[in-house]
Amino acid sequence: MAGIITLLTDFGIEDSYVGAMKGVILSLHPGVTIVDITHQIPSQDITSGAFVLSEAIPFFPKGTIHIAVVDPGVGGKRKPILIETDKYFFVGPDNGICSIAMQREKVKQKIHLTNKSYFLGRISPTFHGRDIFSPVGAYLSLGVDPSLFGKRIGTINGLNFKKPFAMNGKITGQIIYLDKFGNIITNIDQELLKQVFHAKSFEIMIGNNIIKKLVPSYAYAKRNKAVGLIGSSGLLEIAIREKKANIELGAKRGDTIVLV
Amino acid sequence: MAGIITLLTDFGIEDSYVGAMKGVILSLHPGVTIVDITHQIPSQDITSGAFVLSEAIPFFPKGTIHIAVVDPGVGGKRKPILIETDKYFFVGPDNGICSIAMQREKVKQKIHLTNKSYFLGRISPTFHGRDIFSPVGAYLSLGVDPSLFGKRIGTINGLNFKKPFAMNGKITGQIIYLDKFGNIITNIDQELLKQVFHAKSFEIMIGNNIIKKLVPSYAYAKRNKAVGLIGSSGLLEIAIREKKANIELGAKRGDTIVLV
Amino acid sequence: MAGIITLLTDFGIEDSYVGAMKGVILSLHPGVTIVDITHQIPSQDITSGAFVLSEAIPFFPKGTIHIAVVDPGVGGKRKPILIETDKYFFVGPDNGICSIAMQREKVKQKIHLTNKSYFLGRISPTFHGRDIFSPVGAYLSLGVDPSLFGKRIGTINGLNFKKPFAMNGKITGQIIYLDKFGNIITNIDQELLKQVFHAKSFEIMIGNNIIKKLVPSYAYAKRNKAVGLIGSSGLLEIAIREKKANIELGAKRGDTIVLV
Repeated sequence: MAGIITLLTDFGIEDSYVGAMKGVILSLHPGVTIVDITHQIPSQDITSGAFVLSEAIPFFPKGTIHIAVVDPGVGGKRKPILIETDKYFFVGPDNGICSIAMQREKVKQKIHLTNKSYFLGRISPTFHGRDIFSPVGAYLSLGVDPSLFGKRIGTINGLNFKKPFAMNGKITGQIIYLDKFGNIITNIDQELLKQVFHAKSFEIMIGNNIIKKLVPSYAYAKRNKAVGLIGSSGLLEIAIREKKANIELGAKRGDTIVLV
Repeated sequence: MAGIITLLTDFGIEDSYVGAMKGVILSLHPGVTIVDITHQIPSQDITSGAFVLSEAIPFFPKGTIHIAVVDPGVGGKRKPILIETDKYFFVGPDNGICSIAMQREKVKQKIHLTNKSYFLGRISPTFHGRDIFSPVGAYLSLGVDPSLFGKRIGTINGLNFKKPFAMNGKITGQIIYLDKFGNIITNIDQELLKQVFHAKSFEIMIGNNIIKKLVPSYAYAKRNKAVGLIGSSGLLEIAIREKKANIELGAKRGDTIVLV
Repeated sequence: MAGIITLLTDFGIEDSYVGAMKGVILSLHPGVTIVDITHQIPSQDITSGAFVLSEAIPFFPKGTIHIAVVDPGVGGKRKPILIETDKYFFVGPDNGICSIAMQREKVKQKIHLTNKSYFLGRISPTFHGRDIFSPVGAYLSLGVDPSLFGKRIGTINGLNFKKPFAMNGKITGQIIYLDKFGNIITNIDQELLKQVFHAKSFEIMIGNNIIKKLVPSYAYAKRNKAVGLIGSSGLLEIAIREKKANIELGAKRGDTIVLV
């Protein structure tokens, strides 16, 4: 198999940045398959990047190389790293961008990328996506052993990501993402819902809104009426059919959500 | 040949949805070529999706598998279907999304997708693009016989798409699409124009505007002046050079257009 | 090697145009790798297209075919052309779209594309990207000799692109591009900076703003403070960390910038 490299960045699709990364990769490994996860992560929003990465990647085959570059600290002290898990390789800055995706994985080793023979000849301090992460990903896809890229390190940086909190039959969670349909995605998963509420119904309190209706899918939602449902990632979502729930309910990422 | 799968959705390119679909496909068939038609169909706008699909796909080679997912009824009663024509395979919801593209094709069979052994193990009621349509497309590209995916059905759903109407040397048509340049695309094709007007000139009435100038291409249009021309799909378009004609003329999809 | 074709256009990603081009290419050469540089060049903005093309393509392997279509004159008198350099092939309209990229290359021959046996059967006067440039690119990737596409020509059109001007220890340059982060990219490269200022510091005057701080990368910039830095393409940029410098400083493409 020729290998698959996925790309997730905040570089947008207007400029030359993504094209340059793909040129670097294909120059080293013309037969590799490159897949864009997205390049539309809001500029420098590591948390959104980490969430989108974690949602997309479990569907890729074993051995896939994931390059994730949302990197406000580029050219500064943050380390460029490679993480090998039992299923994937992750390549990117050490700022938590891969931390949510990795929660599902068994980590085999973490490497600080220092071996310049696997970088481009001249490293721009503003574009490690092109000059470090792309060539490292391409060499990995060619079968270069991870240990050759640098030294093993013990700890890497994570994100301050709150877990939902359950007490006295009540769950307190958080909005972690707003998707392009305006769906409000929370950090409360269906296992926790079952554990706390069993088969009983519950109410969702979000800002000044109380949502009582839970539906199995969008098709069961009435127009103009906010509903709760379990989204495709197994997380509780709030949606309004054919409208943007985040705008209608004035919801922002990070807002608290309470279930009783 | 390893096969080609095209994707057309309203999922946008910001979220994880498209990446997840590609992961599913490549996990089953790593050698397949995936081509994005677009993921920017306005949310749940089946008619726009059907039009864009029909414009793009005639240029693909025989055997291409087209997955089209604009699916407001996901998780409800609408059927997931597969249509085999003499040239292509279409995979998507039974809501008319493939109906315009199919007008050009000879349909060989229509299948209601019911065989769960070709779906992902766990079907989210909100994301059949990932859990049903992507794996079915991937298995098709591996050569699985269409009849194995489910039972043949007789009729599928279409769209209420008006045809242009010609009487007494006058054509009444409709705006069917506005493209990103602001070009106004009508449902009146060049064959009908020839049939009604032969080589004579005609006037285009759109809202309160009368357009008298017909040009062979954009290069012949003066700035700030609306012109008619035959677009790349053989349909009559109204354009303004270097401006968005839809905004300048206040035109919306569905508006009537009269030619005399 | 099966070959690589890159695409750069102003067609956007909402409509069927890019999908149709890819269908044409894959119908002729199913094994070729197609890479999108971008389709988001502002409509008919040849200069932006020429800049983005020139930034992305040096990273692609020898033999890559670059199709660049920002083409306000489509269907008019401008020639469709092919340029062969020692490293690449460029295919597009003769309007300067490839002129910046070519400054780096040794031109071997320029061909006026006239041989209709390498075009689609029916040429729309509004969509040469699909009907001329895509099939020519595909045939090139199959190894068709450039001389078969038409006659050699001597001169092609360029762009009125000012070069920066240095006198009395002062450099006068221009803003040539604004990227999606709002970074202001100038036409002043690091070689000229060294030549004029050696190791000394200098001030950047842009509109009514004076910028004194030069940093090695974004990570060294303070928030809300405009800084100069050498960007990934070796050109002087002005940036504001986590803000859009072009909006904060009221800068537009073409504006003059003075260094003292």
